[in-house]
Amino acid sequence: MTVVSANIPVQTRGNMDILDITRQAQDCLNDSGLQVGVMTLFCPSSTSSITTIEYEPGCLSDFRRLFEEIVPSQRSYDHDARWGDGNGYSHIRAALLGPSLAIPFRDRSLTLGTWQQIIFVDFDNRSRHREIVVQMVGE
Amino acid sequence: MTVVSANIPVQTRGNMDILDITRQAQDCLNDSGLQVGVMTLFCPSSTSSITTIEYEPGCLSDFRRLFEEIVPSQRSYDHDARWGDGNGYSHIRAALLGPSLAIPFRDRSLTLGTWQQIIFVDFDNRSRHREIVVQMVGE
Amino acid sequence: MTVVSANIPVQTRGNMDILDITRQAQDCLNDSGLQVGVMTLFCPSSTSSITTIEYEPGCLSDFRRLFEEIVPSQRSYDHDARWGDGNGYSHIRAALLGPSLAIPFRDRSLTLGTWQQIIFVDFDNRSRHREIVVQMVGE
Repeated sequence: MTVVSANIPVQTRGNMDILDITRQAQDCLNDSGLQVGVMTLFCPSSTSSITTIEYEPGCLSDFRRLFEEIVPSQRSYDHDARWGDGNGYSHIRAALLGPSLAIPFRDRSLTLGTWQQIIFVDFDNRSRHREIVVQMVGE
Repeated sequence: MTVVSANIPVQTRGNMDILDITRQAQDCLNDSGLQVGVMTLFCPSSTSSITTIEYEPGCLSDFRRLFEEIVPSQRSYDHDARWGDGNGYSHIRAALLGPSLAIPFRDRSLTLGTWQQIIFVDFDNRSRHREIVVQMVGE
Repeated sequence: MTVVSANIPVQTRGNMDILDITRQAQDCLNDSGLQVGVMTLFCPSSTSSITTIEYEPGCLSDFRRLFEEIVPSQRSYDHDARWGDGNGYSHIRAALLGPSLAIPFRDRSLTLGTWQQIIFVDFDNRSRHREIVVQMVGE
Protein backbone atom coordinates (compact mmCIF):
# COMPACT_ATOMS: atom_id res chain seq x y z
CA MET A 1 0.00 0.00 0.00
CA THR A 2 1.19 3.47 -0.82
CA VAL A 3 0.09 7.01 -1.69
CA VAL A 4 0.89 8.54 -5.08
CA SER A 5 0.35 12.27 -5.71
CA ALA A 6 -0.22 14.01 -9.02
CA ASN A 7 -1.73 17.22 -10.38
CA ILE A 8 -3.90 17.93 -13.40
CA PRO A 9 -3.25 21.47 -14.71
CA VAL A 10 -6.16 23.06 -16.56
CA GLN A 11 -6.76 26.38 -18.28
CA THR A 12 -10.41 27.45 -18.23
CA ARG A 13 -12.51 30.24 -19.71
CA GLY A 14 -14.56 30.57 -16.49
CA ASN A 15 -18.35 31.21 -16.62
CA MET A 16 -19.18 27.56 -16.06
CA ASP A 17 -16.64 26.23 -18.48
CA ILE A 18 -16.85 22.42 -18.15
CA LEU A 19 -13.78 20.31 -18.95
CA ASP A 20 -13.67 16.55 -19.45
CA ILE A 21 -10.65 15.44 -17.37
CA THR A 22 -11.24 11.67 -17.64
CA ARG A 23 -8.21 10.98 -19.82
CA GLN A 24 -5.90 13.03 -17.61
CA ALA A 25 -7.16 11.20 -14.52
CA GLN A 26 -6.59 7.81 -16.16
CA ASP A 27 -3.10 8.99 -17.21
CA CYS A 28 -2.32 9.82 -13.58
CA LEU A 29 -3.40 6.30 -12.63
CA ASN A 30 -1.28 4.73 -15.39
CA ASP A 31 1.77 6.70 -14.26
CA SER A 32 1.26 5.65 -10.62
CA GLY A 33 1.68 1.95 -11.35
CA LEU A 34 -1.11 1.16 -8.86
CA GLN A 35 -3.55 -1.63 -9.63
CA VAL A 36 -6.34 -1.30 -7.07
CA GLY A 37 -7.39 1.52 -4.74
CA VAL A 38 -9.16 4.88 -4.63
CA MET A 39 -8.39 8.10 -6.49
CA THR A 40 -9.41 11.35 -4.79
CA LEU A 41 -9.73 14.41 -7.03
CA PHE A 42 -9.85 17.76 -5.23
CA CYS A 43 -10.26 21.40 -6.31
CA PRO A 44 -8.05 23.66 -4.15
CA SER A 45 -10.42 26.54 -4.83
CA SER A 46 -13.74 27.94 -3.59
CA THR A 47 -15.12 28.63 -7.09
CA SER A 48 -14.78 25.26 -8.86
CA SER A 49 -16.08 21.71 -8.48
CA ILE A 50 -15.73 18.14 -9.73
CA THR A 51 -18.49 15.65 -10.55
CA THR A 52 -19.36 13.15 -13.31
CA ILE A 53 -21.73 13.50 -16.26
CA GLU A 54 -22.26 12.15 -19.77
CA TYR A 55 -20.02 14.62 -21.57
CA GLU A 56 -22.08 15.65 -24.58
CA PRO A 57 -23.21 19.20 -25.44
CA GLY A 58 -26.87 18.64 -24.48
CA CYS A 59 -26.10 17.54 -20.92
CA LEU A 60 -23.59 20.36 -20.47
CA SER A 61 -26.17 22.93 -21.62
CA ASP A 62 -28.85 21.46 -19.35
CA PHE A 63 -26.43 21.41 -16.40
CA ARG A 64 -25.57 25.10 -16.94
CA ARG A 65 -29.28 25.97 -17.05
CA LEU A 66 -29.84 24.30 -13.66
CA PHE A 67 -27.22 26.48 -11.96
CA GLU A 68 -28.44 29.63 -13.72
CA GLU A 69 -31.93 28.86 -12.38
CA ILE A 70 -31.13 27.99 -8.77
CA VAL A 71 -28.12 30.32 -8.31
CA PRO A 72 -28.65 33.09 -10.90
CA SER A 73 -25.67 35.14 -12.03
CA GLN A 74 -27.78 38.31 -12.46
CA ARG A 75 -28.93 39.26 -8.96
CA SER A 76 -27.36 40.78 -5.87
CA TYR A 77 -25.10 38.74 -3.58
CA ASP A 78 -23.89 39.74 -0.13
CA HIS A 79 -20.43 38.47 -1.06
CA ASP A 80 -20.27 40.98 -3.92
CA ALA A 81 -21.55 43.82 -1.75
CA ARG A 82 -18.60 43.21 0.57
CA TRP A 83 -15.82 42.30 -1.85
CA GLY A 84 -16.88 43.77 -5.20
CA ASP A 85 -15.43 40.97 -7.30
CA GLY A 86 -18.80 40.02 -8.80
CA ASN A 87 -18.39 36.26 -8.39
CA GLY A 88 -20.74 35.68 -5.44
CA TYR A 89 -22.77 33.21 -7.49
CA SER A 90 -19.57 31.30 -8.32
CA HIS A 91 -18.86 30.68 -4.63
CA ILE A 92 -22.38 29.48 -3.87
CA ARG A 93 -22.54 27.14 -6.85
CA ALA A 94 -19.17 25.60 -5.94
CA ALA A 95 -20.10 25.11 -2.28
CA LEU A 96 -23.28 23.31 -3.36
CA LEU A 97 -21.68 20.97 -5.90
CA GLY A 98 -18.61 20.36 -3.74
CA PRO A 99 -14.85 20.31 -4.28
CA SER A 100 -14.00 16.61 -4.21
CA LEU A 101 -14.72 13.25 -5.79
CA ALA A 102 -13.53 9.75 -4.83
CA ILE A 103 -13.37 7.11 -7.58
CA PRO A 104 -12.35 3.48 -7.03
CA PHE A 105 -9.97 1.81 -9.49
CA ARG A 106 -9.39 -1.87 -10.25
CA ASP A 107 -7.09 -3.67 -12.70
CA ARG A 108 -5.37 -0.29 -13.31
CA SER A 109 -8.64 1.32 -14.53
CA LEU A 110 -11.07 3.82 -13.03
CA THR A 111 -14.46 2.11 -12.44
CA LEU A 112 -16.41 4.63 -14.52
CA GLY A 113 -19.55 3.75 -16.44
CA THR A 114 -19.53 3.65 -20.23
CA TRP A 115 -21.21 7.04 -20.61
CA GLN A 116 -19.73 8.63 -17.50
CA GLN A 117 -16.96 11.22 -17.65
CA ILE A 118 -15.19 13.16 -14.90
CA ILE A 119 -15.74 16.90 -15.25
CA PHE A 120 -14.07 19.94 -13.77
CA VAL A 121 -16.54 22.83 -13.55
CA ASP A 122 -15.10 26.32 -13.30
CA PHE A 123 -17.79 28.53 -11.77
CA ASP A 124 -15.62 31.64 -11.58
CA ASN A 125 -16.50 34.69 -13.69
CA ARG A 126 -13.19 34.84 -15.55
CA SER A 127 -10.51 32.69 -17.14
CA ARG A 128 -8.40 30.81 -14.61
CA HIS A 129 -5.40 28.51 -14.42
CA ARG A 130 -6.12 25.65 -12.01
CA GLU A 131 -4.17 22.72 -10.59
CA ILE A 132 -6.48 19.85 -9.69
CA VAL A 133 -5.08 17.74 -6.84
CA VAL A 134 -5.03 13.97 -7.49
CA GLN A 135 -4.24 11.60 -4.64
CA MET A 136 -4.18 7.84 -5.24
CA VAL A 137 -4.18 5.37 -2.33
CA GLY A 138 -3.75 1.72 -3.24
CA GLU A 139 -1.40 -1.09 -4.14
CA MET B 1 -3.16 -1.95 5.22
CA THR B 2 -4.93 -3.35 2.21
CA VAL B 3 -7.69 -2.72 -0.33
CA VAL B 4 -10.75 -4.97 -0.48
CA SER B 5 -13.19 -4.73 -3.42
CA ALA B 6 -16.85 -5.71 -3.49
CA ASN B 7 -20.00 -4.95 -5.48
CA ILE B 8 -23.60 -4.39 -4.39
CA PRO B 9 -26.00 -5.52 -7.12
CA VAL B 10 -29.37 -3.76 -7.17
CA GLN B 11 -32.49 -3.95 -9.27
CA THR B 12 -34.41 -0.65 -9.45
CA ARG B 13 -37.70 0.55 -10.85
CA GLY B 14 -36.13 3.84 -12.02
CA ASN B 15 -38.03 7.16 -11.73
CA MET B 16 -36.22 8.13 -8.55
CA ASP B 17 -36.51 4.75 -6.92
CA ILE B 18 -34.59 5.07 -3.63
CA LEU B 19 -33.02 1.94 -2.11
CA ASP B 20 -31.65 1.58 1.42
CA ILE B 21 -28.28 -0.18 0.91
CA THR B 22 -26.99 0.20 4.48
CA ARG B 23 -27.20 -3.50 5.33
CA GLN B 24 -25.48 -4.55 2.11
CA ALA B 25 -22.67 -2.03 2.75
CA GLN B 26 -22.17 -3.32 6.30
CA ASP B 27 -22.17 -6.90 4.94
CA CYS B 28 -19.35 -5.93 2.55
CA LEU B 29 -17.42 -4.58 5.52
CA ASN B 30 -18.04 -7.73 7.57
CA ASP B 31 -16.84 -9.91 4.71
CA SER B 32 -13.68 -7.84 4.27
CA GLY B 33 -12.38 -8.58 7.76
CA LEU B 34 -11.15 -4.97 8.04
CA GLN B 35 -11.45 -3.15 11.37
CA VAL B 36 -10.67 0.49 10.63
CA GLY B 37 -10.54 2.51 7.42
CA VAL B 38 -12.71 4.17 4.78
CA MET B 39 -15.37 2.66 2.50
CA THR B 40 -15.92 4.38 -0.85
CA LEU B 41 -19.23 3.69 -2.60
CA PHE B 42 -19.39 4.62 -6.27
CA CYS B 43 -22.10 4.54 -8.98
CA PRO B 44 -20.55 3.57 -12.34
CA SER B 45 -23.35 5.41 -14.11
CA SER B 46 -24.34 8.93 -15.13
CA THR B 47 -27.98 8.59 -14.02
CA SER B 48 -27.70 7.45 -10.38
CA SER B 49 -26.29 8.75 -7.11
CA ILE B 50 -25.48 7.84 -3.51
CA THR B 51 -26.08 9.89 -0.35
CA THR B 52 -27.47 9.41 3.16
CA ILE B 53 -30.93 10.19 4.58
CA GLU B 54 -33.28 9.05 7.32
CA TYR B 55 -34.95 6.25 5.39
CA GLU B 56 -38.63 6.75 6.13
CA PRO B 57 -41.42 7.40 3.59
CA GLY B 58 -41.85 11.08 4.50
CA CYS B 59 -38.21 12.00 3.84
CA LEU B 60 -38.17 10.00 0.61
CA SER B 61 -41.28 11.79 -0.64
CA ASP B 62 -39.86 15.20 0.31
CA PHE B 63 -36.55 14.37 -1.37
CA ARG B 64 -38.34 13.38 -4.61
CA ARG B 65 -40.31 16.67 -4.53
CA LEU B 66 -37.06 18.68 -4.32
CA PHE B 67 -35.69 17.13 -7.51
CA GLU B 68 -39.00 17.45 -9.32
CA GLU B 69 -38.99 21.16 -8.42
CA ILE B 70 -35.40 22.08 -9.30
CA VAL B 71 -34.91 19.62 -12.22
CA PRO B 72 -38.46 18.95 -13.50
CA SER B 73 -39.12 15.80 -15.50
CA GLN B 74 -41.75 17.51 -17.68
CA ARG B 75 -39.88 20.11 -19.69
CA SER B 76 -37.51 20.14 -22.64
CA TYR B 77 -33.84 19.16 -22.26
CA ASP B 78 -31.08 19.66 -24.81
CA HIS B 79 -29.87 16.13 -24.06
CA ASP B 80 -33.24 14.71 -25.14
CA ALA B 81 -33.32 16.86 -28.27
CA ARG B 82 -30.03 15.26 -29.32
CA TRP B 83 -30.42 11.68 -28.13
CA GLY B 84 -34.18 11.15 -27.81
CA ASP B 85 -33.98 8.85 -24.80
CA GLY B 86 -36.07 11.19 -22.62
CA ASN B 87 -33.85 10.98 -19.55
CA GLY B 88 -32.19 14.39 -19.74
CA TYR B 89 -33.47 15.26 -16.26
CA SER B 90 -31.96 12.01 -14.92
CA HIS B 91 -28.47 13.04 -16.03
CA ILE B 92 -28.71 16.52 -14.52
CA ARG B 93 -30.05 15.29 -11.18
CA ALA B 94 -27.28 12.68 -10.93
CA ALA B 95 -24.53 15.16 -11.79
CA LEU B 96 -25.82 17.50 -9.07
CA LEU B 97 -26.11 14.90 -6.29
CA GLY B 98 -22.90 13.13 -7.29
CA PRO B 99 -21.81 9.53 -7.85
CA SER B 100 -19.72 8.78 -4.77
CA LEU B 101 -19.72 8.68 -0.98
CA ALA B 102 -16.86 8.02 1.47
CA ILE B 103 -17.75 6.61 4.90
CA PRO B 104 -15.24 5.91 7.68
CA PHE B 105 -15.46 2.66 9.65
CA ARG B 106 -14.13 1.76 13.10
CA ASP B 107 -14.36 -1.41 15.18
CA ARG B 108 -15.70 -3.19 12.07
CA SER B 109 -18.71 -0.81 11.85
CA LEU B 110 -19.63 2.06 9.54
CA THR B 111 -19.73 5.32 11.53
CA LEU B 112 -23.31 6.15 10.58
CA GLY B 113 -25.68 8.06 12.86
CA THR B 114 -28.65 6.32 14.46
CA TRP B 115 -31.17 7.69 11.97
CA GLN B 116 -28.85 7.80 8.97
CA GLN B 117 -29.06 5.28 6.14
CA ILE B 118 -27.07 4.97 2.91
CA ILE B 119 -29.28 5.34 -0.15
CA PHE B 120 -28.86 4.53 -3.81
CA VAL B 121 -31.00 6.87 -5.94
CA ASP B 122 -31.85 5.73 -9.45
CA PHE B 123 -32.72 8.84 -11.44
CA ASP B 124 -33.14 7.01 -14.75
CA ASN B 125 -36.57 6.89 -16.40
CA ARG B 126 -36.81 3.09 -16.50
CA SER B 127 -36.00 -0.04 -14.53
CA ARG B 128 -32.29 -0.79 -14.32
CA HIS B 129 -29.88 -3.40 -13.01
CA ARG B 130 -26.94 -1.71 -11.31
CA GLU B 131 -23.68 -2.82 -9.72
CA ILE B 132 -22.56 -0.37 -7.04
CA VAL B 133 -18.77 -0.36 -6.63
CA VAL B 134 -17.53 -0.72 -3.04
CA GLN B 135 -13.86 -0.16 -2.26
CA MET B 136 -12.56 -0.51 1.31
CA VAL B 137 -9.13 0.78 2.32
CA GLY B 138 -8.00 -0.06 5.83
CA GLU B 139 -6.48 -2.59 8.18
CA MET C 1 0.63 3.19 5.50
CA THR C 2 -1.80 3.42 8.36
CA VAL C 3 -5.20 4.73 9.43
CA VAL C 4 -5.50 7.37 12.15
CA SER C 5 -8.90 8.21 13.67
CA ALA C 6 -9.97 11.43 15.36
CA ASN C 7 -13.14 13.35 16.17
CA ILE C 8 -13.97 17.05 16.02
CA PRO C 9 -16.59 17.94 18.65
CA VAL C 10 -18.77 20.94 17.83
CA GLN C 11 -21.60 22.78 19.55
CA THR C 12 -24.01 24.42 17.13
CA ARG C 13 -27.03 26.75 17.32
CA GLY C 14 -28.84 24.84 14.54
CA ASN C 15 -30.88 26.71 11.87
CA MET C 16 -28.08 26.55 9.34
CA ASP C 17 -25.35 27.51 11.75
CA ILE C 18 -22.11 27.29 9.71
CA LEU C 19 -18.84 26.55 11.51
CA ASP C 20 -15.33 26.92 10.11
CA ILE C 21 -13.58 23.68 11.15
CA THR C 22 -10.41 24.14 9.07
CA ARG C 23 -8.11 24.68 12.06
CA GLN C 24 -9.50 21.67 13.92
CA ALA C 25 -9.04 19.49 10.82
CA GLN C 26 -5.44 20.64 10.40
CA ASP C 27 -4.87 19.99 14.15
CA CYS C 28 -6.07 16.40 13.64
CA LEU C 29 -3.58 16.03 10.81
CA ASN C 30 -0.75 17.49 12.91
CA ASP C 31 -1.54 15.09 15.75
CA SER C 32 -1.59 12.10 13.38
CA GLY C 33 2.04 12.51 12.35
CA LEU C 34 1.10 11.59 8.77
CA GLN C 35 2.77 13.38 5.87
CA VAL C 36 0.81 12.38 2.78
CA GLY C 37 -2.62 10.83 2.25
CA VAL C 38 -6.34 11.59 2.33
CA MET C 39 -8.50 12.91 5.17
CA THR C 40 -12.17 11.90 5.14
CA LEU C 41 -14.55 14.06 7.18
CA PHE C 42 -17.96 12.55 7.87
CA CYS C 43 -21.15 13.73 9.65
CA PRO C 44 -22.75 10.81 11.53
CA SER C 45 -26.12 12.54 11.24
CA SER C 46 -28.95 12.99 8.74
CA THR C 47 -29.35 16.73 9.38
CA SER C 48 -25.84 18.11 8.85
CA SER C 49 -23.27 18.35 6.04
CA ILE C 50 -19.68 19.25 5.22
CA THR C 51 -18.38 21.24 2.25
CA THR C 52 -15.91 24.06 1.55
CA ILE C 53 -16.51 27.79 1.01
CA GLU C 54 -14.78 31.12 1.42
CA TYR C 55 -15.67 31.70 5.05
CA GLU C 56 -16.76 35.33 5.10
CA PRO C 57 -20.20 36.66 6.16
CA GLY C 58 -21.37 37.49 2.63
CA CYS C 59 -20.84 33.96 1.28
CA LEU C 60 -22.46 32.44 4.37
CA SER C 61 -25.52 34.67 3.97
CA ASP C 62 -25.78 33.88 0.25
CA PHE C 63 -25.42 30.15 0.95
CA ARG C 64 -28.24 30.27 3.52
CA ARG C 65 -30.48 32.07 1.01
CA LEU C 66 -29.94 29.31 -1.57
CA PHE C 67 -31.21 26.62 0.80
CA GLU C 68 -34.13 28.76 1.96
CA GLU C 69 -35.12 29.18 -1.69
CA ILE C 70 -34.81 25.60 -2.92
CA VAL C 71 -35.79 23.82 0.34
CA PRO C 72 -37.90 26.39 2.24
CA SER C 73 -38.30 26.05 5.98
CA GLN C 74 -41.87 27.43 5.92
CA ARG C 75 -43.93 24.88 4.02
CA SER C 76 -45.33 21.43 4.68
CA TYR C 77 -43.11 18.32 4.61
CA ASP C 78 -44.27 14.72 4.62
CA HIS C 79 -41.56 13.93 7.18
CA ASP C 80 -43.10 16.43 9.61
CA ALA C 81 -46.62 15.13 9.00
CA ARG C 82 -45.41 11.69 10.14
CA TRP C 83 -42.95 12.55 12.90
CA GLY C 84 -43.95 16.03 14.08
CA ASP C 85 -40.42 17.19 14.82
CA GLY C 86 -40.61 20.07 12.34
CA ASN C 87 -37.18 19.47 10.78
CA GLY C 88 -38.25 17.93 7.47
CA TYR C 89 -36.41 20.65 5.56
CA SER C 90 -33.24 19.89 7.57
CA HIS C 91 -33.21 16.29 6.35
CA ILE C 92 -33.71 17.23 2.70
CA ARG C 93 -31.04 19.92 2.72
CA ALA C 94 -28.52 17.55 4.34
CA ALA C 95 -29.26 14.71 1.88
CA LEU C 96 -28.69 17.13 -1.02
CA LEU C 97 -25.41 18.63 0.23
CA GLY C 98 -24.09 15.29 1.51
CA PRO C 99 -22.44 14.03 4.69
CA SER C 100 -18.82 13.55 3.65
CA LEU C 101 -15.77 15.25 2.19
CA ALA C 102 -12.39 13.82 1.17
CA ILE C 103 -9.38 16.16 1.22
CA PRO C 104 -5.85 15.17 0.15
CA PHE C 105 -2.89 16.24 2.28
CA ARG C 106 0.80 16.61 1.39
CA ASP C 107 3.83 17.72 3.39
CA ARG C 108 1.66 17.48 6.53
CA SER C 109 -0.82 20.09 5.16
CA LEU C 110 -4.35 19.89 3.75
CA THR C 111 -4.30 20.92 0.07
CA LEU C 112 -6.88 23.69 0.50
CA GLY C 113 -6.90 26.84 -1.60
CA THR C 114 -6.00 30.19 -0.09
CA TRP C 115 -9.63 31.33 0.28
CA GLN C 116 -11.12 27.90 0.90
CA GLN C 117 -12.28 26.79 4.33
CA ILE C 118 -13.90 23.55 5.50
CA ILE C 119 -17.38 24.15 6.89
CA PHE C 120 -19.73 22.09 9.01
CA VAL C 121 -23.35 23.07 8.27
CA ASP C 122 -25.95 22.21 10.89
CA PHE C 123 -29.32 22.12 9.13
CA ASP C 124 -31.27 20.98 12.20
CA ASN C 125 -33.88 23.29 13.73
CA ARG C 126 -32.29 23.42 17.18
CA SER C 127 -28.97 23.57 18.98
CA ARG C 128 -26.98 20.33 18.76
CA HIS C 129 -23.79 18.75 20.02
CA ARG C 130 -22.05 16.92 17.17
CA GLU C 131 -18.96 14.73 16.82
CA ILE C 132 -17.52 14.96 13.31
CA VAL C 133 -15.70 11.77 12.31
CA VAL C 134 -12.19 12.29 10.91
CA GLN C 135 -10.37 9.38 9.27
CA MET C 136 -6.87 9.84 7.88
CA VAL C 137 -5.29 7.25 5.56
CA GLY C 138 -1.68 7.82 4.64
CA GLU C 139 1.95 7.51 5.58
